[in-house]
Amino acid sequence: MSSQGFSPAENRAMELALDTAKLGFRGANPLVGAAVLDATGEVLSIGYHSGAGSPHAEIDALANLRHRISQQQDLSDCTMVVTLEPCNHQGRTGPCAAAIVDAGIGNVIYAAADPTPEATGGGDVLRNAGIGVRSGLLQERALELNHRWFRAKSENRPFTTMHIAQTLDGLIAAPDGTSQWITSAESRQDSHGIRSRVGAIIAGTGTVLADNPRLTARDESGAATKSQPLRVVMGLRDVPEDSAIRGDDGRFMQLRTHDPAEVLRELAERGVGHAMVEGGAAVAGAYLQADLVDELVLYLAPMLLGDGTRSTGDLGIRTLAEASQWRWDNSGGGRTSNLGADLRLHLEPMPHGIPSGRKGL
Amino acid sequence: MSSQGFSPAENRAMELALDTAKLGFRGANPLVGAAVLDATGEVLSIGYHSGAGSPHAEIDALANLRHRISQQQDLSDCTMVVTLEPCNHQGRTGPCAAAIVDAGIGNVIYAAADPTPEATGGGDVLRNAGIGVRSGLLQERALELNHRWFRAKSENRPFTTMHIAQTLDGLIAAPDGTSQWITSAESRQDSHGIRSRVGAIIAGTGTVLADNPRLTARDESGAATKSQPLRVVMGLRDVPEDSAIRGDDGRFMQLRTHDPAEVLRELAERGVGHAMVEGGAAVAGAYLQADLVDELVLYLAPMLLGDGTRSTGDLGIRTLAEASQWRWDNSGGGRTSNLGADLRLHLEPMPHGIPSGRKGL
Repeated sequence: MSSQGFSPAENRAMELALDTAKLGFRGANPLVGAAVLDATGEVLSIGYHSGAGSPHAEIDALANLRHRISQQQDLSDCTMVVTLEPCNHQGRTGPCAAAIVDAGIGNVIYAAADPTPEATGGGDVLRNAGIGVRSGLLQERALELNHRWFRAKSENRPFTTMHIAQTLDGLIAAPDGTSQWITSAESRQDSHGIRSRVGAIIAGTGTVLADNPRLTARDESGAATKSQPLRVVMGLRDVPEDSAIRGDDGRFMQLRTHDPAEVLRELAERGVGHAMVEGGAAVAGAYLQADLVDELVLYLAPMLLGDGTRSTGDLGIRTLAEASQWRWDNSGGGRTSNLGADLRLHLEPMPHGIPSGRKGL
Repeated sequence: MSSQGFSPAENRAMELALDTAKLGFRGANPLVGAAVLDATGEVLSIGYHSGAGSPHAEIDALANLRHRISQQQDLSDCTMVVTLEPCNHQGRTGPCAAAIVDAGIGNVIYAAADPTPEATGGGDVLRNAGIGVRSGLLQERALELNHRWFRAKSENRPFTTMHIAQTLDGLIAAPDGTSQWITSAESRQDSHGIRSRVGAIIAGTGTVLADNPRLTARDESGAATKSQPLRVVMGLRDVPEDSAIRGDDGRFMQLRTHDPAEVLRELAERGVGHAMVEGGAAVAGAYLQADLVDELVLYLAPMLLGDGTRSTGDLGIRTLAEASQWRWDNSGGGRTSNLGADLRLHLEPMPHGIPSGRKGL
């Protein structure tokens, strides 16, 4: 399994696969990209995983390959290059290792091993089928690509996405509490898109009592989308019987705690792989301070309020050197995009060990 | 001077001129774009004013035209289309009306009249020289393009640019006051570029006493650039004799007031056409609350602080409906750009009478 000599074509293909992986959305599954090379090193197809429930990168690359070559073509001298060890489990999609074997691909190179107990072992399945398997090519970059997903897995908790809808000066409500609507209809629709991809959405009792939100995922027409997240309220105060968040679909729950780790532990036990932190500021601050936010989507409305409710609550940071460092995330949806009058920013926490580029400047 | 029938080609050329105008930087002079058409309506050249001290749009368009045609070519059937009435005054560059006459251009169309006493009268100069002059084509758009510049002129004050260097959550300093450096070296260099374009830079006594800034414009090497702004401190507290901002070039002054309008009045009397509001938060808030900020450059560092000094101070806004509305500005430098790890945002106040697109959503 150690790194062996890789050709320039294989190296380029892995770089391509790493870039292609970023076309997908972060969430319950890692970002994965794949490429199929012929014996001369030419790229025959690429593929990526666009998000939970959609085909894995290897399956996508094989499907794209079939559009290009005949069913009968011998693929035994082809190489599948993939950023993560092909999986060996039957999830919502079939195991990738078996699909690669079935396709007749002769060689596989993967960058990083899959550490999850349920998916691991794909490399061995491939080897046992007689496929030449090598690994470790650009492993560091592959690990960094999903550094927060690996962390979430190692902590046995859902991957978390936080969304914040704020003014240019970082406020989510005016001094009198009014907040509807700071952001545009397009931004709110984008948030509904996130809601429809996650397994659970988390709000505090303060938000529920103040705004009485439904927290359902809805389409442009306002109709509930097919996939609905669990609606989770955290906090000690009672949620009134007539609160909109309760709904009538049995997908509401309250967790009487202020501890974000406890909430995520509960959700993991219920099989939630991706949770969205809706807010408000106290809840947002608690997740941020606990370093339990893996992805940040920030909708910036072109307005100023000067005073009001700050978006992030206290993070326990006293001095600039302790600031919470992030970096722009080019994956699913891109690092910046225009949503109506708003600007959407997409970030992930700076990986540990990567200098922010600011120290000593 | 009233609107007359304009051909589709003339209309398209004015749209092109309006778009081209945005290549320039806002400041002491308005954004202006120009295009020269031949008798068939084909665009022979375009031009724009890139900022105070550089050629006016008409001069730029004529210079670009000379690269394309021979000196001897007869231009009497050509039309100069320009977004603002050609000027009639000898500033740092010569009067445009005379240059158009000298070039032998036969026809001029301008969108909006120049309201400034020192530049007005260009249309009459052209007419008296026998040039066919029409005006009013896309006048509304031309007025809107420079709506804040026109306002500054009508208020007899400098055009103002505010820069803010803040975290994602709208903070300019940590709770302990540390703020150096929130933004990247690239963002700071961009700020120095603004400093080198303005006639004055305004800071509060609080900032001077806390940070002891020099407030000079410096290049990448740290050396002072040729053009240096007047360094203006506003506030009642004394500026210590050894403060860096005093410098030794005689370009320092203190105005013992908290009234931003009074500061701008003083600067206008000294011939300052473009002022930069440096901060801190109290000064920024005062200018914003008085609606005396014409352009906002916001450097957004990918970090969170949670608590600390807010970027904008109190603006006297109590409820969301009163929020200060802005819009993205695509002119000089663009609406968003990457500066090292930071994102640079560029905005201008929403013109009055233009709905924000949020009401009733």
